[in-house]
Amino acid sequence: MPLSLSLGQSSAISSEAARFLQNVPTIPFAGVLSPFIARPSRVPSMRAQFQKGEDVVEENIIAKYNLSVNTITLGDVPVLVISPPKPTDPSRIIYNVHGGGFMLGTARDRTALLFAAEMNMIVYSVDYTLAPEAKYPVAQNQCLTVYSELIQKFDPQHILGLSSSAGVPLIIAVLNRARSEKLPMIAGLALFAPATDISGAGDSLTFNESRDVMPPILSLELVRQNYLGTADPKDPLVSPIFAEYGPHFPPTVMITGTRDVMMSGAVRFYWKLREVKVQVEILIMEGMWHGFNWEPDLPEAIQVRSAVRKFLQELIK
Amino acid sequence: MPLSLSLGQSSAISSEAARFLQNVPTIPFAGVLSPFIARPSRVPSMRAQFQKGEDVVEENIIAKYNLSVNTITLGDVPVLVISPPKPTDPSRIIYNVHGGGFMLGTARDRTALLFAAEMNMIVYSVDYTLAPEAKYPVAQNQCLTVYSELIQKFDPQHILGLSSSAGVPLIIAVLNRARSEKLPMIAGLALFAPATDISGAGDSLTFNESRDVMPPILSLELVRQNYLGTADPKDPLVSPIFAEYGPHFPPTVMITGTRDVMMSGAVRFYWKLREVKVQVEILIMEGMWHGFNWEPDLPEAIQVRSAVRKFLQELIK
Repeated sequence: MPLSLSLGQSSAISSEAARFLQNVPTIPFAGVLSPFIARPSRVPSMRAQFQKGEDVVEENIIAKYNLSVNTITLGDVPVLVISPPKPTDPSRIIYNVHGGGFMLGTARDRTALLFAAEMNMIVYSVDYTLAPEAKYPVAQNQCLTVYSELIQKFDPQHILGLSSSAGVPLIIAVLNRARSEKLPMIAGLALFAPATDISGAGDSLTFNESRDVMPPILSLELVRQNYLGTADPKDPLVSPIFAEYGPHFPPTVMITGTRDVMMSGAVRFYWKLREVKVQVEILIMEGMWHGFNWEPDLPEAIQVRSAVRKFLQELIK
Repeated sequence: MPLSLSLGQSSAISSEAARFLQNVPTIPFAGVLSPFIARPSRVPSMRAQFQKGEDVVEENIIAKYNLSVNTITLGDVPVLVISPPKPTDPSRIIYNVHGGGFMLGTARDRTALLFAAEMNMIVYSVDYTLAPEAKYPVAQNQCLTVYSELIQKFDPQHILGLSSSAGVPLIIAVLNRARSEKLPMIAGLALFAPATDISGAGDSLTFNESRDVMPPILSLELVRQNYLGTADPKDPLVSPIFAEYGPHFPPTVMITGTRDVMMSGAVRFYWKLREVKVQVEILIMEGMWHGFNWEPDLPEAIQVRSAVRKFLQELIK
């Protein structure tokens, strides 16, 4: 069964976006089947299938922009260094934490590649250990290690942070722990389709059920069975919506769409930061799904990435 | 049948908001019955019932803030002048166009009263003629007449515009026509639950069907049968999403919620203005319905009105 898309809905988005939505497969009986689909034993095949599709897209971006991709280690953590042929200023860099529900994806994610190309900057993308092989807080510790190394190698105010979906609780926990350890903040953040609350709260998890690329119940079940271990989803270091913030937090732009199951997490986090006087912007796109922003050629994705660049470039001028 | 409200949804909003949603009556068989409910002959009773509830709230606000409310005429159009006891600066004023689907409400609307009180400013609120007694473009012409008078009496850069729901296409058409007539723009705009597209397009009309205070099909049917006449809903002076804008357009803040049937209209209009370099901000509140902002004591409404004041006050400093 395809996702529902009325004439009134498709007339308010690009024809490319409408075609994308018409091709999203839905999972029948997701509510009943999710606990089984999400079992740790099923993760390797899910990962292989996901990566097969991603590899094609990633290699196209690398070829199109002539990017170089090299693995280094920082404090024993593997990090992918993605570079355009002639970065505008090698002293200004991006720190990227990829998404994928803590279980899927690699440091060579589309966002890392697209921003290396489109901002003409070098990206350091953390290749953290996935779940279920590593449970909370292994990946978070690895991301903090890389952060600590990068702020020594570069002027923290020349570093921009990017993260997507499940990468968002990782990068925000890193910043909150860095703050506790009196480490400096970086210049700014872009959070794509942010998973700020993995406790299951929020309006969009309900209204975008059966409207987004993946059923929220499956996402939550995958995280519960594979990643959380004994951690409480309401722990402020697990779900950043429950942490406290202050004006020291870096200027932040958040990107979501009206079909994104995590839209409410972005909306709520916007207000959380705004109320403590953090410079914050929310970019919500009509009819767009979880992660629409990393489609290389989708008009809405191109438009939103341009707005994100505008926000970030102001911060490292 | 009450509106649906899961535990995950209610845990992300105030308890006051959850109580409000639990008390919203739904209209059974709205899809089938709307053409009959929306008939012109039924408008007077609908209006009387609506106003009965509003009168109580409005009179409470007037008493609480000791507001004065007087009717004047500007260019033969009745205008309500709402004033706090000691306005901060009588040379800086608000121009208000109320909502109510072109059929309901009066110039003494909650937003006019609340902003007179909370911004301590004098509000000029247009008492335009309602539909079906007057069809398109009578009300729009009246609003333009009042605009033309106000920009002569006051420095246009000392005037802020407010409008709600169906008041939004009126105030924007006024600005677009004023621009064509080479009249000056005002200093800024706040658009609450904006009806920027009354052609029936947009994602939120679908996903917030049965989740908001009124079925979208009934709103559209009321407008069609009572207001539009022979006008095309895609006419740029009818639905502002179809008009062209430029950087001359006043700085604008838009207010909506994730349950608002008109959220997509706000989201789309945000991008429309942003892309032509208008200063624009969108304030989206988690779980909030169409017009939540005019609840006097709702925590989310208080919070968003405070953010709106902050935006507007910067513009007339």
